[in-house]
Amino acid sequence: MEKQIFPELLDKSIKLLTELPGYGEKSAQRFLESLLNLPRSEALDIVTTLLQTLEKLHPCKECGLYTEETICTVCSDEGRDTSIICVVEESFDAFAIERTGKYTGLYHILGGRLSPLEGITAEDLNIESLLERIKKRDVKEVILATNPTVEGEATATYIYNFLKNQNVDISRIAYGLPFGAVLENADDFTIAKALEHKVKLI
Amino acid sequence: MEKQIFPELLDKSIKLLTELPGYGEKSAQRFLESLLNLPRSEALDIVTTLLQTLEKLHPCKECGLYTEETICTVCSDEGRDTSIICVVEESFDAFAIERTGKYTGLYHILGGRLSPLEGITAEDLNIESLLERIKKRDVKEVILATNPTVEGEATATYIYNFLKNQNVDISRIAYGLPFGAVLENADDFTIAKALEHKVKLI
Repeated sequence: MEKQIFPELLDKSIKLLTELPGYGEKSAQRFLESLLNLPRSEALDIVTTLLQTLEKLHPCKECGLYTEETICTVCSDEGRDTSIICVVEESFDAFAIERTGKYTGLYHILGGRLSPLEGITAEDLNIESLLERIKKRDVKEVILATNPTVEGEATATYIYNFLKNQNVDISRIAYGLPFGAVLENADDFTIAKALEHKVKLI
Repeated sequence: MEKQIFPELLDKSIKLLTELPGYGEKSAQRFLESLLNLPRSEALDIVTTLLQTLEKLHPCKECGLYTEETICTVCSDEGRDTSIICVVEESFDAFAIERTGKYTGLYHILGGRLSPLEGITAEDLNIESLLERIKKRDVKEVILATNPTVEGEATATYIYNFLKNQNVDISRIAYGLPFGAVLENADDFTIAKALEHKVKLI
């Protein structure tokens, strides 16, 4: 099948979209077809907004949460409880917790999880900066809310050991979440329950 | 839930992506998360390619197939059999037929299907221009390859009646395809069989 079926740019778009996890050739085609079937101005609006998002979104200097500003809306919100930091793997995990409306503390985005198979070690994650934040601010409690997966569990254990001699309470988000699940996709109630039943570690 | 969870541009991107058929809030989020998790240069490459595609892709002046040129690669290919025109609803249907490598004639893209429910009438489709092409060129045969759905069937019947007094053979793509299916998603073999067993109407 060396013959090129699609016009060049369409072909390139399809191939590039399959770089996204979960996107095969068919789903990439379907995405492009949907986009091309919209009125062109609407389609352009979608794609230019995506472009702006990629250009302007970056990690908060303080906690690592995706933001368009230097400091994110959570860190710059004076109503938040700055004595609690909830540690999550990715920004979208923090957004999922925000959606429950049950958490008023701050976040710390690790930027991933320990994964020997993928060669991701502690140095690749924002763990040092967590210690700095704890020392600099008057942090009383750290909630470890990494995903309830093998890697998330290993990451939580690593951070627990890293912080256990600091004068700070450390909790692990409760196993209201089924093991092997992805936090971001859990329903609000389960996330809220898991936060409510966090188990004190030290 | 009036509170805005996501940074503004991310929020806008998610809302805009849900305009695409099949995209709910969760799948839009997952798309953006995947995009943001890629190295930023790769993500920008994807989105700028999408933008270029939307800016440069347009219907072929002759047949309506998506192309970056004035005339598409099929119409400008001197090796194609210009005496046969295969009529399809959308460009992606023609791409699916091209993928089989079994068809060497030309295409005619209707740009949709008759749908009273959606208010799509014959005037909204490229049907007049099909007659013009038949008259202008030495077209011997028209294959009606609209989807094997109620709307596609109605569209084929409409075009059959519209063309039956012209001096041209008219065929309908064979029902190798299961009724109710979408042509674009069928496997190559089924599409090839359906072309092979087309039934002569006049």
